[in-house]
Amino acid sequence: MIKVQSLISLLALGTSVFSYSSANAVSGTNTTHPVEFGFVLFPAFQALDVFGPLDALNMLSLNYSINLHLLSTTLDPVSTRIPSTLPANRANSNFSESIVPTATFDNPPENLDVLLVPGGFGTRASNEELAPQINFIRDTYPNLQYLITVCTGAWLAAKAGVLDNRNATSNKAAWAGREGLGNNTNWIPHARWVQDGNVWTSSGVSAGIDVTFAWLEAVFGNETATDVSVELEYSRHLNASEDPFADYWGL
Amino acid sequence: MIKVQSLISLLALGTSVFSYSSANAVSGTNTTHPVEFGFVLFPAFQALDVFGPLDALNMLSLNYSINLHLLSTTLDPVSTRIPSTLPANRANSNFSESIVPTATFDNPPENLDVLLVPGGFGTRASNEELAPQINFIRDTYPNLQYLITVCTGAWLAAKAGVLDNRNATSNKAAWAGREGLGNNTNWIPHARWVQDGNVWTSSGVSAGIDVTFAWLEAVFGNETATDVSVELEYSRHLNASEDPFADYWGL
Repeated sequence: MIKVQSLISLLALGTSVFSYSSANAVSGTNTTHPVEFGFVLFPAFQALDVFGPLDALNMLSLNYSINLHLLSTTLDPVSTRIPSTLPANRANSNFSESIVPTATFDNPPENLDVLLVPGGFGTRASNEELAPQINFIRDTYPNLQYLITVCTGAWLAAKAGVLDNRNATSNKAAWAGREGLGNNTNWIPHARWVQDGNVWTSSGVSAGIDVTFAWLEAVFGNETATDVSVELEYSRHLNASEDPFADYWGL
Repeated sequence: MIKVQSLISLLALGTSVFSYSSANAVSGTNTTHPVEFGFVLFPAFQALDVFGPLDALNMLSLNYSINLHLLSTTLDPVSTRIPSTLPANRANSNFSESIVPTATFDNPPENLDVLLVPGGFGTRASNEELAPQINFIRDTYPNLQYLITVCTGAWLAAKAGVLDNRNATSNKAAWAGREGLGNNTNWIPHARWVQDGNVWTSSGVSAGIDVTFAWLEAVFGNETATDVSVELEYSRHLNASEDPFADYWGL
């Protein structure tokens, strides 16, 4: 629990944060909760798919002792840049950002508890190009407590076999892209997010924030989810089946 | 304008993006619009303050030729990590992400059109520590078309003198932190965002997405703003003065 008083102490006064009392004990240190969080990266990932969930978890990390691992094929920065060979890059903009991985798929942290898979244009690369990511999801899933996908990250989870015989959702503008993916996967078009067992899948981009809050509430409790949403000044979408973008696309 | 049909071609079909016709001309190439976008970075910036607005602009960049400049004191990656000396880091988490700057304040791109200033714990650093950022804002503002601040990024703009004699808003949990900042600044507590001339300020974190969409609508038109919101599956907050977090904090 993040107490409101703690929030006030932390955030409301420009100077009080520097004198915050250690008498306000960190919550959760004596409870069992997920500790090791991994994010799967690939070229041309969608920035908000990563940083929406991540910033909610950044705030969680102030009150729970948790660790972040940003996973890629190498430790080189990973860019959102859409390859110039893709027509989506037709405006010839020079507009992308790169983030720094902390671990590789070949040498990952032990005992990941939660793995998050973002989407983006990069999920349209070939299965061969995405083999490191798909194989990592396949190999890691059996030991995870939770898998969360955002947007077309569900395609990678499906290719890894994780969505076999499950309910799932994905990006609505790119809904057709899920066709043929997953073995007996029940793709639910009208869903902001879908939980099936320990697998949480969300609709496109911003929906990743909502699935993260729903997951936070389920795992860390309503009070924590609410406190984090207040810290981010985020008005949560609380209804998993309310999906204006499924309506928009006539699904 | 991003046509809905273009969106379908781009996003709806897994393979069609590779055969997207060049007959779909890039919009805006013959119009005058802001081209050079800068983001001010500093240690312990708030991730979503940057990546919410940035991902809307990432989508804009697919249809308008625009360029991104991520500015810092050096070209070393900039981390969201809260200094261990701050009690906010009391959970001893290892949970932060680093992004790669593309330019320095000492050697910035010429002719920036738009500058975005995020907030975060890092805005609580001393004026001396933040002098490069504050001075850059002060020096750059007179030649900008637009300045946008998110969350406590408004504090830096105020310290740079940009908010003198203006209406502005900032993070609501940290509302007290604005006290004494700005010369005759009219701080508006009940606002998701505030526009005053070419200066747009927003409330905390997620409000940065809403001010970006409001700005997009004002500068690039309603159709573009709507299309980008559909691409991000983001339900916009359309009312600048509707602010549940001001209510939450009793402001």
